[in-house]
Formats: sequence, C-alpha cells, structure tokens
Amino acid sequence: MMNRTEIAEWLKQLQDNICSALENADGKSKFETETWTRPEGGGGRTRVIKNGAVLEKGGVAFSAVEGNAPEFLFREKEHAVSSPSPLGKDGKGLAFFATGVSIVIHPESPLVPTIHMNVRYFEMDNGVRWLGGGIDLTPHYVVENDAKYFHAQLKKVCDKHHPDYYKKFKTWADDYFYIAHRQETRGIGGIFFDRLNESADMSFEKNLAFWKDVGELFAPVYVEIINRNKNKTFSEQQKQWQLLRRGRYVEFNLVYDKGTKFGLETNGRTESILMSLPKFASWEYDYKPEKNSDEEKTLNLLKKGIEWV
Amino acid sequence: MMNRTEIAEWLKQLQDNICSALENADGKSKFETETWTRPEGGGGRTRVIKNGAVLEKGGVAFSAVEGNAPEFLFREKEHAVSSPSPLGKDGKGLAFFATGVSIVIHPESPLVPTIHMNVRYFEMDNGVRWLGGGIDLTPHYVVENDAKYFHAQLKKVCDKHHPDYYKKFKTWADDYFYIAHRQETRGIGGIFFDRLNESADMSFEKNLAFWKDVGELFAPVYVEIINRNKNKTFSEQQKQWQLLRRGRYVEFNLVYDKGTKFGLETNGRTESILMSLPKFASWEYDYKPEKNSDEEKTLNLLKKGIEWV
Repeated sequence: MMNRTEIAEWLKQLQDNICSALENADGKSKFETETWTRPEGGGGRTRVIKNGAVLEKGGVAFSAVEGNAPEFLFREKEHAVSSPSPLGKDGKGLAFFATGVSIVIHPESPLVPTIHMNVRYFEMDNGVRWLGGGIDLTPHYVVENDAKYFHAQLKKVCDKHHPDYYKKFKTWADDYFYIAHRQETRGIGGIFFDRLNESADMSFEKNLAFWKDVGELFAPVYVEIINRNKNKTFSEQQKQWQLLRRGRYVEFNLVYDKGTKFGLETNGRTESILMSLPKFASWEYDYKPEKNSDEEKTLNLLKKGIEWV
Repeated sequence: MMNRTEIAEWLKQLQDNICSALENADGKSKFETETWTRPEGGGGRTRVIKNGAVLEKGGVAFSAVEGNAPEFLFREKEHAVSSPSPLGKDGKGLAFFATGVSIVIHPESPLVPTIHMNVRYFEMDNGVRWLGGGIDLTPHYVVENDAKYFHAQLKKVCDKHHPDYYKKFKTWADDYFYIAHRQETRGIGGIFFDRLNESADMSFEKNLAFWKDVGELFAPVYVEIINRNKNKTFSEQQKQWQLLRRGRYVEFNLVYDKGTKFGLETNGRTESILMSLPKFASWEYDYKPEKNSDEEKTLNLLKKGIEWV
C-alpha cells in the first residue's frame, strides 16, 4: 500500500513523464519549471510551456500541500461516490494533506483540441482519504473519429477496473464541465470522479490502481490526437472561432471550476491556478455561426449525454 | 416626485443621449439595438457598438424588469448606507421592479481607457426603494492629469449634493472594483454606491437628483478623456499590455462583479450581461513588466486609497 509520500513521488514522476511526452510531441519548446512553497505548509512544482510549434500555452502543475482542513470540505457531499461517506463527521481542527497533478494545454492550431487532466489525492489525519480526477477534451472543431477514439480509450481504462465506472464518470463529466449560462458543455467531456475511497466491490487499493491508470493514459491519448491534427492547415476564420471558444473556456474556469474558485478564495497561488487560461481569448456580442457551417455542427455536439462509444 | 415609469423613461432617454455622444466621439461606427423581453416580466434595450474608429467593442444597456423579489436581497446588507435599512424585514412573496442603464466601453487604442458606468433604481411593492450606481475608469496606462480630471469631475457632482458623498463613494469604489487574488484595483476607481434611499439630511428626492447627475456626467467626462488620447500613436508592445490588462478585466467581471454573478445565477440574459467582456484578452504565465517601465508605473497605481483630488 502506498503512503502519501509515495503517492506524491508517483505524481512527480507522472509530471516528468507527461512533460517529456509533450515536449517530444511539440518538437520545439521546452517546459520551464518554477518551484514554490506555501506559507501554511507544502508547495509545488509548476511547469509551463509557451510558443511551441504545436502548444501555444500550457501548464503541468504538481503540488503537495498540508494544513488545517478547510471548512468547505464539510459542506460538499453531493458527489460522494463511496458508501459510507469517506468524510465522516465535522472534522474541524483536523490536518489535511493534498497532492495532485493538474494540466491544461492550449495548442496554437484551432484544429488541435485543448485538453485538461487532473489527478488528486487527499487525506486527513483521522484516516479519511480519497482520490479524485478527470480528463476532458475541448475540440474547437469536433472530429467524430477523434471523439470516439478519446472516449474509447477512457472506457477501456475504466472497464479494466469496474464495469460501471465509465458510464458513471462520463455522466459526471457531462454535468461538471457544463457552462450553464450558455447551455453548452465545455467540450466533448470525458470522465470526472471525486471522493473515491472504497466500496463493497472496490478496495482503496483497487481504486488507486484505476486512478494511476487514468494519470498514465493522458500522454499517449493526447499525443495521438495531436499527431492526427497538427499538420492540418487552417484559416483566419477558424482561428477566430478558436478564440471565441477559448472565451467560453475562460468563462467555465472563472465562473464554475471548483478548483479555481476554491484556490482563489483560499489565497492559493494565483499564477498556478490561472495557468489554465489561454494566451488569447475573444468575445463578440451574440455571435452565431452560419447555418450548416462546421462551427454550427460543433456547437450542436456540445451537449450532455452524447454516447461516443 | 418621479414614479417608476418616469424613472425608466428618464433612463431610456439617458441611454439615447449617451449613445449619440459616443457615436459622435467615435465618428465611424453606430450602435445597433436589440430589444428583448423577459419571460418573468419586463425586458430591455441592449445597444452595442463594434469596430469603431475609437471604440472596439462596447455596450449601453437599458433594462426594466419585474417579478418576485429574489432571495439574495434579504442577505446582502453590508453596504446599506441609509438608516434605517431600506429593506426592512424578510420580504418573501413581494414583487420587485428594477430598472437601470449599464455601460462598458473597450476602446481600440491602449492609450484610451476602458470605462464602466451603471445607474439603477429598485423598488418593492411594500414601498421599499433605493438607488445605486457607479462610474469607474480603467486606463491601461495611467495618465495622472486624466486621473485627476476624472476624479475632480466626480467630486464636483458629489459635492453639489452632499459633502460626504465623494469620500464615501470613492472609498466604496476602491473596495468594490478590487481583484483580490491579484491584490490590484481594476483601474483608478471612481465612485460606487448602493441602496441609497433617504437619511437625516438627504430626502429620496435629493438623492434622486444626485443619481441623475451621475448618469448625466458620464458622456461629457468620457468624451473628454477620449479626445485627449485618441490620436496618440501606440506600439505593438502597448497593445499587448492592453490585452493582458483586459484579461484582468475579465477576471474581475467573472469572479467578483455582483451584477454579473447575480445575472448568470438567476438565468438573466447572458448576452446582455457578458457584453462587458472585451473583444480580445490575453494571459501570460507570471508576467511581470520591466522595472521602471510605463507598465510597471501603472501597476503601482492600481492600489486602494490613492487621493487623486
């Protein structure tokens, strides 16, 4: 059984491996590393890449922080997937430890999708612990074959560990990565899960093995999607559409994303939290794509409940 | 004494006058009008301008809506300036009426400031009513003479009505237009007030006269600031700085602005709410301006408590 130090070390190694794979796929730019410490305890290693041949702006962040358990933990139980709840009673005065890797990559080309991944581990000193994570893909133009490939890979990893996980966590991603005021999903979804601990048929160790497989899936799946699309030529109009879609990405991250909101409210490290924002974004009043255009087709696929596999 | 219909008519006329003044100052583009109705009652007239000679993207929105008083009204009392509180007790089941004009203008040139203005009137059918409003200026490069001029004009209007208003409402603007996670004000501030009703030395009618003067101040002050700066040439580097500052404007509006948050949470008209966002915005990881540059000088002036007059 891995302890928290071993989990954090595994995550650092994951960060290394993902950065290497992305540098190879880009072929031009390298990640720059910034390490930081948190006055209340712990710190992180933020890696950012910019102005690459493929990757315009992106970050792969590792952090491992500790301190007094924040009050919000004892409110949000709507998505507890384990039974009994891993949290137990009000935990005031408890110390927590949290470690994870977070990724957002914005490519230069509007034909290469933006992607996000997060894997996180949390524990308190009363023995409560859980795993969370997710991957979701945001194409500016949905290529059905790529969408099917992406979801099929996620399903394969889920199915290896539990027959219900893909369906459950795909639905959760549809609900989570949703821009309510636009009535649009952020992209074509993926999987999302939180507070995964142990259940009748899954020990914590089995869930840990699933969680590690999710982390290790990121690099090969995204590199494949990059390679399928990076050499396609694109127009100014497609670039402008990408900027408008990135505006929606900004709206999701600043209005809805729980990690962003929690980070900003609790005096987190702003630059690491907001490394998820794109280099450029655009807004136009009441923009509507042309009828039957590729842009409109993509918009029609930004809905909950589409079965890609 | 004006009733709510007369106040709404006055606001529509204000919208007309401001749009004319801005079209004259721009000299090229015209506002386009979109009228809309709200299923729950009322509607609005949104006017937007784009790709002007001076004004890249902006909106001047009038709305007058009614319905059941939203629950949030009975929570936020931190900024009540009148005594006794105009709200009174829990008002569940009460009907409300709210009307206002909201403006955000993003010019093309980084040397012409972005500006925001709002004047609003609210009443409930138990006789409770109040006025709110504010103007704040967001230069991408602070020109001290312009900042002094802007605040002097606001002070003159405030002083005409009450000796304490400028100081009180200037401080309120410093606190309101603040990006906490950046420890920066959005711009050089201005004035902000809410729930203005009546007090020992100010009748509602006197406050209404103040509020109308604030609305009428907008056009002449902003046109003067446009004319002082619109013909200055600017560099690519200054344009890039403007886009980064606009990223901060987006952060303020999506993370902190109460009107935006309330509008998005209560199923408001998204396009009218988010007309405040700029055509283009940009983010760079951990960007720091050069030592002693104009950009750094501006950043050092984005603080609370600066006395411009």
